[in-house]
Amino acid sequence: MRPIRLALVPGEPAGVGPELCVRLAQRPREYELVVFADPRSLRAAADALSLPIALVAPGHTAGVAGELAVVEVANATVPAFGTPDPGNAAAVIGALRLAAEGCLRGDFDGLVTGPVHKATINEGGIAYTGTTELLARQAGRDVVMMLANDIVRVALVTTHLPLRAVPDAVTPQAVERTLRITHAALRRDFGIADPVIAVLGLNPHAGEAGHLGGEEIEVIEPVLAALRGEGMQLAGPLPADTAFLPSKLHGFDAVVAMYHDQGLPVLKYSGFEHAVNLTLGLPYPRVAVDHGTALDLAGRGLADPSSLIAAAHTCARIAALRSRRAAGPQ
Amino acid sequence: MRPIRLALVPGEPAGVGPELCVRLAQRPREYELVVFADPRSLRAAADALSLPIALVAPGHTAGVAGELAVVEVANATVPAFGTPDPGNAAAVIGALRLAAEGCLRGDFDGLVTGPVHKATINEGGIAYTGTTELLARQAGRDVVMMLANDIVRVALVTTHLPLRAVPDAVTPQAVERTLRITHAALRRDFGIADPVIAVLGLNPHAGEAGHLGGEEIEVIEPVLAALRGEGMQLAGPLPADTAFLPSKLHGFDAVVAMYHDQGLPVLKYSGFEHAVNLTLGLPYPRVAVDHGTALDLAGRGLADPSSLIAAAHTCARIAALRSRRAAGPQ
Repeated sequence: MRPIRLALVPGEPAGVGPELCVRLAQRPREYELVVFADPRSLRAAADALSLPIALVAPGHTAGVAGELAVVEVANATVPAFGTPDPGNAAAVIGALRLAAEGCLRGDFDGLVTGPVHKATINEGGIAYTGTTELLARQAGRDVVMMLANDIVRVALVTTHLPLRAVPDAVTPQAVERTLRITHAALRRDFGIADPVIAVLGLNPHAGEAGHLGGEEIEVIEPVLAALRGEGMQLAGPLPADTAFLPSKLHGFDAVVAMYHDQGLPVLKYSGFEHAVNLTLGLPYPRVAVDHGTALDLAGRGLADPSSLIAAAHTCARIAALRSRRAAGPQ
Repeated sequence: MRPIRLALVPGEPAGVGPELCVRLAQRPREYELVVFADPRSLRAAADALSLPIALVAPGHTAGVAGELAVVEVANATVPAFGTPDPGNAAAVIGALRLAAEGCLRGDFDGLVTGPVHKATINEGGIAYTGTTELLARQAGRDVVMMLANDIVRVALVTTHLPLRAVPDAVTPQAVERTLRITHAALRRDFGIADPVIAVLGLNPHAGEAGHLGGEEIEVIEPVLAALRGEGMQLAGPLPADTAFLPSKLHGFDAVVAMYHDQGLPVLKYSGFEHAVNLTLGLPYPRVAVDHGTALDLAGRGLADPSSLIAAAHTCARIAALRSRRAAGPQ
């Protein structure tokens, strides 16, 4: 069994992604790490932070601190930190696609990604709504976005939609798909044999028995009943404001929220620095940082690498779990 | 100047309200407390918890621990704990109205309320959406619901609406009214001379410059611009998931959320036990518990009195601040 090998993509070269990769490279690691990037961006970040970096060809790294294997994806320009160049959009997206192809082929056991600057990619002429969506299309899979830290795991039924579009997007199919993918991931990737999932309502007080909206009764509860019939442990639909009480969270392996701002404020409040963004449902584990490009901090050595470190650690842990399982009974 | 005098209403007699009032009465206090309730309910709660209670007529209490002045509002029945009787709906609502009338007349300096069981009141034939709404109508005032603990104060533009109805209810008028009332209350009731208010967007990522919804640009930002022109310190519209990061919260005196489940999960996660529910904009301070009737705990001595104690303490503090101000310059 070869060692776990992760593909790493820094994201926007003018943001904090390159310097976070350089800082990650300083740490001892028990897995191989191959970064898909323009070496000039990585060297610029290392120089800006006065950190050593040794860029080597894939296969020539032994996971030594400061050393990083690179698959070169040349940017059009080396942008100044803080000033993204839309001319680099194709390279930024190209690096993601190439790394993901490697994961789909089995060359890598997982994908770790830094932050992309959405507006810059779109200005560069590439229709891009998010890396999660891009990877889902490329793999031809339904996926679920999960944000996780040491306190709570939150999976979302809908993600980046205007609030006005949320109620119609919370269909029985969307709820069922989210629950099935989340449940399977908790078993497969987190090693939880019989996970307990809390499912939030769509409306305040989870609709208060129909007084504050009917979607809990009409949409969510029938799905929960059907899946409970298959043996899933599902609590809910629960009011969002009290489902996150520490005393209750303790009993849940994950919380499934119906939309972005219902589920993520507590996640970020309770441990932003160590939070990661997982894409569940892909053929390979993908874990991203839980923050943006932080253009105002880029190149100054001020960005906190905790989320990228946690993302790489989480991805390696999941990859190892999958690898051990694929190797058959111990 | 007479001492601060608060009106106390326990709420649903089959819930934890009566026993929380009895436990509050055990504590030494620097204000007068007059409870509007059926003495039988209070005695039943005291007996169930084996606590002493001395019920006296208003004006005959000196704030002694264990002693409670009562204005009798007779229930139709003394329900078993845990089993609300819709026949008591008129008395439960009557006690609230009577106490609030006393506040409006100036007999009391503030109102402290326990939890009401909404479904039971409606089953009892009284149209009731919430105590906040009832008190607003009675006083003929626009009000704002604010939930607060030691970590954060959250005021809501909309409260108990189906999610589907929220976007249309977030009008410029509603945002402006919420901000004016919240700003005035932070100054008057919290003694903050120049409060800083964080205002959340309606959509995820606060609409991401129009890519995820237009309400930030069309509705919220113009209101903020106008009120900033009057000198208010307003941050936003901010993404809800990052506005609550501890490092950011530190700089805000309050967060104005557009809807219930956007603002309250962090509030409750971060300190449910000591959270209170304030009604801003009434002629008198009103502070309620931040929890429900907890029918499953009622009469067993298991309910945590922290929220009612915090509510009474907060109400007395605000009443004293208003009273000192009304008495003129020191």
